[in-house]
Amino acid sequence: MVHIIGWGHTKFGKLDGQGVEDLIVEAGREALAHAGIAPGEVDGIWMGHFNGGMVPDGFPSSMALSIDPALRFTPATRLENACASGSAAVFAARNAIMAGEAKVALVLGVEKMTHLPTRDVAAALGHAAYQKEEAGLSFPAVFAGFARAYFEKWGDKTEALAMIAAKNHANAMANPLAQLHKELPVEFCATESERNPMIAAPLKMSDCSLVSDGAAAIVLVADDVAKAMPRAVRLRAAEQVNDFLPMSRRDLTAFEGPREAFRRAFLASGVTLDDLHVAEVHDCFTIAELMIYEAMGLAAPGQGETLLRQGAVMRNGRLPVNLSGGLKAKGHPVGATGVSMHVLVSRQVTGTAEEMQQDGASLGMVFNMGGSGVANYCTILEAERI
Amino acid sequence: MVHIIGWGHTKFGKLDGQGVEDLIVEAGREALAHAGIAPGEVDGIWMGHFNGGMVPDGFPSSMALSIDPALRFTPATRLENACASGSAAVFAARNAIMAGEAKVALVLGVEKMTHLPTRDVAAALGHAAYQKEEAGLSFPAVFAGFARAYFEKWGDKTEALAMIAAKNHANAMANPLAQLHKELPVEFCATESERNPMIAAPLKMSDCSLVSDGAAAIVLVADDVAKAMPRAVRLRAAEQVNDFLPMSRRDLTAFEGPREAFRRAFLASGVTLDDLHVAEVHDCFTIAELMIYEAMGLAAPGQGETLLRQGAVMRNGRLPVNLSGGLKAKGHPVGATGVSMHVLVSRQVTGTAEEMQQDGASLGMVFNMGGSGVANYCTILEAERI
Repeated sequence: MVHIIGWGHTKFGKLDGQGVEDLIVEAGREALAHAGIAPGEVDGIWMGHFNGGMVPDGFPSSMALSIDPALRFTPATRLENACASGSAAVFAARNAIMAGEAKVALVLGVEKMTHLPTRDVAAALGHAAYQKEEAGLSFPAVFAGFARAYFEKWGDKTEALAMIAAKNHANAMANPLAQLHKELPVEFCATESERNPMIAAPLKMSDCSLVSDGAAAIVLVADDVAKAMPRAVRLRAAEQVNDFLPMSRRDLTAFEGPREAFRRAFLASGVTLDDLHVAEVHDCFTIAELMIYEAMGLAAPGQGETLLRQGAVMRNGRLPVNLSGGLKAKGHPVGATGVSMHVLVSRQVTGTAEEMQQDGASLGMVFNMGGSGVANYCTILEAERI
Repeated sequence: MVHIIGWGHTKFGKLDGQGVEDLIVEAGREALAHAGIAPGEVDGIWMGHFNGGMVPDGFPSSMALSIDPALRFTPATRLENACASGSAAVFAARNAIMAGEAKVALVLGVEKMTHLPTRDVAAALGHAAYQKEEAGLSFPAVFAGFARAYFEKWGDKTEALAMIAAKNHANAMANPLAQLHKELPVEFCATESERNPMIAAPLKMSDCSLVSDGAAAIVLVADDVAKAMPRAVRLRAAEQVNDFLPMSRRDLTAFEGPREAFRRAFLASGVTLDDLHVAEVHDCFTIAELMIYEAMGLAAPGQGETLLRQGAVMRNGRLPVNLSGGLKAKGHPVGATGVSMHVLVSRQVTGTAEEMQQDGASLGMVFNMGGSGVANYCTILEAERI
C-alpha cells in the first residue's frame, strides 16, 4: 500500500513572475514541510508536466533539485500523458514505492501557460490531438465534437452543461486557491452572449476550463513510513487505461476508456459508487464532466442531466463532484491538475478542506484524463489518520 | 528481478516517410514477435521520447496502441529525461513489474529529427539546458565547455577524442542498423578541416553525435514469465541519479552525477568493472565518453586517454565500449537511445550481436545520460538463457 502524508498547492491563476522552476519549488517545499519530511529523506521525484511548446524548459525533472540542495543525486523523472501528466507522476511514484525502490517519493505537477496569447496556448494543447487526422484542431473543437455527437444521440443538453459550469463556479467560491471567484448563474452559462461567446458550437466560453499557471505536490510513502506519521491517506486503488489516440477510432457519445478505468478502480478497491463521499473529476469542458458521470456509472447513458436536476453532484448531494471548483473555476495548469486533484481529495478525506469540506468525508475519488478520454487515471483515496 | 526477453530496433538514420507512430509500430511489433508475446498479453507500455519541439505529436503514449488493436485499454505512459528518456522508460517499466502492477511490459524509445534543419534540431535539443542561465546555448557549446575545462586541467586531449570518434566509427562498420558506415582515421578526426569543421572549440564535427530518426523496443517481464522463455537477460542493477540542472552548480572537469550512478550500480549488483564484458555508454560527444571512462572508474581522473592508447576500450580490449558504434556512428535519435543501448547489450550478452559480437560476453553495462551529466542511468545486464 502507498500513502499520501502531505501536500502543497500554489494558487492557480495568472502567476506573473513565477516560472516553472519557481512553481515547483513553492509546491514542493510546502508538501515536504506539511509531511514533516526532510529533503534528504526523499528517495525519488516524479514530475507531471505537459509543456507542448508552452515553455522552453524541455527537461524540467532536475529543476526539482532546486527545492533543496540535499536533493542532489536523487532520481527525478518527468512524466507526460497530456492533461493527465500529473496522475502519470503519481502512478509512477506509487510503482516505485510498491517496487521497494523508494520509501519516500515527492510527486510534482506543474504548468506555466498564462504568459502566452490564448491562440498559442490552444496550439500547444492541440499537440495532444492525433496530428495525422486532427492537426490544427483545438481542444474546444475536439470536445465540441463530443458534445454534438452526445446531443444528437440524447438531445440538447445545453442547460445541463450550464448547470455544471454554474456548480463548479459556485464551488470555487470556497476554494481560496482557485483561479476564479465569480458565481455564474445557470442562465448566463446557458446563453450565448457577448460575455459568453460561442467558442466551438455548442460549447461556449462558460463550458471551457481556464488557462492557468500553477503547481501541486504530494508526498507519497511506503507503509512503514506512513505508520509513524500523524496524517495518512491510503491509495486504495489506482488504475490507468489508455484508449486509441485518433477520435476516428472512438465512440464520441461514450467515454469508453474512462468507463474501463472506473470499472477497474472499483474492482481493485472493492469500493462502490455508494461508498464514495467526494469526487474530483476532469471537467476540462462541461461536456466531459457530464459524460464522466455516465462513465463512472452515476447515471445511465444519456441520463447525466438528471443528476444535476436532482442535485446528486451538488454540495451535500449524493456524490459532490468538484467541490474545489474543478478545472472550470479552480483552473487547469495541465501538468499540475492530476496532482492537484489528489491534494484536494486528500484534504476532503482528512477533513482539512476548510470552506470546501464535505461533512464526514473519508473516501474519495480522483478521475484525471489526458486528451478526450485517451489517458484515463482513476484513484480511490481513503483516510487512515486525519 | 526483471528480465528482457525480446527486442526490436529500427535502422537509425534519415528515415524519410516514417513518423513517430510508424517508428514505434515497427520497433514494437518486432520486439513482441521476437519475445514471443502476443499483444494482448502486454500489461503496460512505457515510452521514452524527448521531442522538445521537433515534432507536433505532444502526446505520443497512445500511439503505441497502433501496434495492435489488442492493446486497447492498456496503460501507456511517456517518460522524458532529455537524452536519457529511453532509460527513463526502461526504469519505469521495471518499477511497474517489481510493484506487481505488470507481468509483461513493452518499452519503447523513439525520436524523429532529420526532417528539420540542423539549426532547428540544435534549438530543440538546447531546450534540455537550464534556460535561466543557458538559453540559446547549443549542446555542442555545452560539451565544449566541459572539454575546455577538462583540457585546462588535464592538458589537450584532442587526439584522445579523435581516437574515440575513430573507434566508434570503426565499430559501426559491424552494425547494419547504424546510421553511418564510414571509417574515419584518427588523424582526420584530430584535424580541423573543411570536411571536419570546428563546431564549438575544441569540438569538431567528428566529436559530435548524429541527428537521427529511429526507435527501439524491449519486452520486460517478471520472473515467472521469464522462466518459460527461451531467452532472458536479467537486470542485475538499475540505478538513476539526477544532478543539478544548471552547469554553474556542477564541476565541469568531472561527471559527478554519472560517477554516483556507476557507484550505486556496482554496489547494487555486486559486479565490479573487471566482471564486465561490454559497455554501451553515452557518447553524445567524444568528451562525454572520455569523462565517462573516468566516472565509471576505468581510469583515474585525467587518465582516460591511456585507455585508448592501451586499447582497453577497443574491440577485444579489457572492456570494449560502444561496439555498436555508439551515438557517434550508430546514431542518436534521443528518445530511442537508452532503449537501443539495452537492446545492444542484450544482444551482446546473449551472443546474438552477429558481426558486433564480443566473444564470450555474458555481462554488460548500459550508461545513458540526459543533459550534461544531469539525468544518469546505469544498468547492469546479465544473460540467463541465450
